[in-house]
Amino acid sequence: MACDFCEIIADRAPARVAYQDDDVLVIYNRLRWVPLMLLVMPKRHMSQEEMWQDATITKIARVALQMGATHCPGGFRLLSNFGHDALQSQGHAHLHVLGGTYLGHYVVRAPPPG
Amino acid sequence: MACDFCEIIADRAPARVAYQDDDVLVIYNRLRWVPLMLLVMPKRHMSQEEMWQDATITKIARVALQMGATHCPGGFRLLSNFGHDALQSQGHAHLHVLGGTYLGHYVVRAPPPG
Repeated sequence: MACDFCEIIADRAPARVAYQDDDVLVIYNRLRWVPLMLLVMPKRHMSQEEMWQDATITKIARVALQMGATHCPGGFRLLSNFGHDALQSQGHAHLHVLGGTYLGHYVVRAPPPG
Repeated sequence: MACDFCEIIADRAPARVAYQDDDVLVIYNRLRWVPLMLLVMPKRHMSQEEMWQDATITKIARVALQMGATHCPGGFRLLSNFGHDALQSQGHAHLHVLGGTYLGHYVVRAPPPG
């Protein structure tokens, strides 16, 4: 199955772009749980684990910080989810930028779906 | 006012240490919202913003990933909070490692306290 994010990066699937350069793409999440939900990703396909143990994280982190500081003067959250317990839904590495309102706690215990 | 994390790093305040090397300290959070709550921090005092735009993030990210992968085979979440809207309570840079159970959504809208 094709990678959803690689399809967006290759311009074969639609997304609203917030920022891009040679290495990084930032898109608006289709989810609207809070006013600002951005996804910051390397254009090169890699796993979450690869990104977080590679120098790639330096550039991704810097762009994510700029996005949060620019769009969310009241504060923001940067995060990555790994695996089932954390609701990871895309294999392609990415950081979430979340903000635009009071975000509440950063983890909530809940029973798994299904 | 003294920095709480610098006090721990200087061994003037107690904490349960999960890992440390020359540059990084990992402690167990006193909060117990989920089974695993670790705080990964640079030993040198810096702000969240400094850590996220500096090469320091590379080492912090790698250690945080190792902690999550080791302690949470079912998945885990890595995050930093910035400012009021995200519940940041410590000025000293740190990453949260969260796991050990199904974590649910990574943001919940709620009214601010007080």
